[in-house]
Amino acid sequence: MAGETIITVVGNLTADPELRYTQNGLPVANFTIASTPRTFDRQANEWKDGDALFLRASVWREFAEHVAGSLTKGSRVIATGRLKQRSYQDREGNNRTSIELEVDEIGPSLRYATAQVTRAASGGGGGGGQQARPQQVQQDEPWSTPGSAAPDAWSAPGTSYGDDTPF
Amino acid sequence: MAGETIITVVGNLTADPELRYTQNGLPVANFTIASTPRTFDRQANEWKDGDALFLRASVWREFAEHVAGSLTKGSRVIATGRLKQRSYQDREGNNRTSIELEVDEIGPSLRYATAQVTRAASGGGGGGGQQARPQQVQQDEPWSTPGSAAPDAWSAPGTSYGDDTPF
Amino acid sequence: MAGETIITVVGNLTADPELRYTQNGLPVANFTIASTPRTFDRQANEWKDGDALFLRASVWREFAEHVAGSLTKGSRVIATGRLKQRSYQDREGNNRTSIELEVDEIGPSLRYATAQVTRAASGGGGGGGQQARPQQVQQDEPWSTPGSAAPDAWSAPGTSYGDDTPF
Amino acid sequence: MAGETIITVVGNLTADPELRYTQNGLPVANFTIASTPRTFDRQANEWKDGDALFLRASVWREFAEHVAGSLTKGSRVIATGRLKQRSYQDREGNNRTSIELEVDEIGPSLRYATAQVTRAASGGGGGGGQQARPQQVQQDEPWSTPGSAAPDAWSAPGTSYGDDTPF
Repeated sequence: MAGETIITVVGNLTADPELRYTQNGLPVANFTIASTPRTFDRQANEWKDGDALFLRASVWREFAEHVAGSLTKGSRVIATGRLKQRSYQDREGNNRTSIELEVDEIGPSLRYATAQVTRAASGGGGGGGQQARPQQVQQDEPWSTPGSAAPDAWSAPGTSYGDDTPF
Repeated sequence: MAGETIITVVGNLTADPELRYTQNGLPVANFTIASTPRTFDRQANEWKDGDALFLRASVWREFAEHVAGSLTKGSRVIATGRLKQRSYQDREGNNRTSIELEVDEIGPSLRYATAQVTRAASGGGGGGGQQARPQQVQQDEPWSTPGSAAPDAWSAPGTSYGDDTPF
Repeated sequence: MAGETIITVVGNLTADPELRYTQNGLPVANFTIASTPRTFDRQANEWKDGDALFLRASVWREFAEHVAGSLTKGSRVIATGRLKQRSYQDREGNNRTSIELEVDEIGPSLRYATAQVTRAASGGGGGGGQQARPQQVQQDEPWSTPGSAAPDAWSAPGTSYGDDTPF
Repeated sequence: MAGETIITVVGNLTADPELRYTQNGLPVANFTIASTPRTFDRQANEWKDGDALFLRASVWREFAEHVAGSLTKGSRVIATGRLKQRSYQDREGNNRTSIELEVDEIGPSLRYATAQVTRAASGGGGGGGQQARPQQVQQDEPWSTPGSAAPDAWSAPGTSYGDDTPF
């Protein structure tokens, strides 16, 4: 894909994610993120809530199950993905459109919370029905496991970080 | 602030976050996010890793402690914040610059993991030294707690979601 | 403002911008950006259009007049701003919401076009009704004018670019 | 490509773009965007400049020629693209890295300027050396030309915009 409209949203889930399965057994989770900006009121000398943005979101496959098992109503999340527009007919038969977020990555925000993270058992890869894009990534994803040498790949042979750079 | 350069990064921590305290007792956590793009090789018919982007990041206050207590080397994260440029002198006395991420929100990605999230005890507000922007938000942040009525505010009185919209 | 949902959209105007004036004489321009992603069809070995995203957008003040005087139906643009949700009643009296883009910056894309740019006459500052945020910036905006020394400020005293860095 | 780090930058060019040609005759333009955030100083009751971010950027092919022919030192631009990290050796032989922007779209900001836009003559497609991704898009890019029926495709048959929606 090229030319998609990418967006990052920070907000709170308005309800627990709804986990369902397609006829082919594919998991999908749907939920709504409420993102509330704040304005500094100079006269009152305090922050005040602005109008919330309610963005409907969906996530697929094992990822959907991870979301449904980790996030609940009120969870503050950070999510990034692609904006999608859908057409539908309302009850009066009018054509309408809605804008939704197709989630590429989501996680609980650590701003006001801590999290105990457990790497998902890759579990045989989940069988068929895999799309080309992100899911095939799963097997070769470098993830720190105790005793694993994989993360050392990050040390980037040939490039010496941290000698005289301040990080 | 206005006109800052905002960025979202998805990647893996190259090491455990380093948690330190300023002379005033302010916590700060530093870490590096390695973000690796993938290209689809049409001849080999498979995805291949591109060159990783290594981005140095920092996070402050209680937020820093949450990060240090939740994320480890190899953790896949989603982070959003502002790009900052710093000037420094290297060992030869040359002026140099580095680009870093001042994190606004970060969390573990749920794509290949699950997370058990625990709301941080707001702990009396954290005492002095609070900046104007995000920290004062803490007290009135709506977060789902058992028995709390706060999340109901999300039901958005006056706006009926879900009647004939498909979400 | 803090915590707003920021988005960048690339697409084509579906019609000429509509320029109007509020009762207070404030200019506002409205238009719709159609953003069409493309997928590479491996079997056909060619790029194919995906479903377009149509995003309604608005821009205010002198900025609105610049847009209305520079862009037309079909113009390819790059725009960044904040997503806003509006509530309204349709003809049947149902409460509905729409998502729109409050533009912070927009310009014609130079991918398939060239542009002859003319700095706007600041024109006496535009009179009353100025908001705090971007408009007050106008006077002290560094912009290259013939004979102006201002852009030299960009040479960043104390930081030597371009000596041994490759740019 | 998937998983790249995408960024949007608004700022001013620190110098005219440098247009060069590779040995294969491929045009490339390089330039630096200086992006200056502003903080509202509540005591002084005015906006003050923060530290500028200087981001080196590059753009390729006809697009590079459009940029070099349209933008000059001081031009305020909006640009979006992918962050890339490059490794190099400085004069002392140390390995160093720099972060740059590979531009996907750029245009002059209309906030303080107007622009007269001219569609580039597609010129027979520009001959060989085209990459897979964006350049092949050129021929079928819908762009408003006098007498062209193409933009009518934007009227989105089957979806009635503007009847009871407020845009």
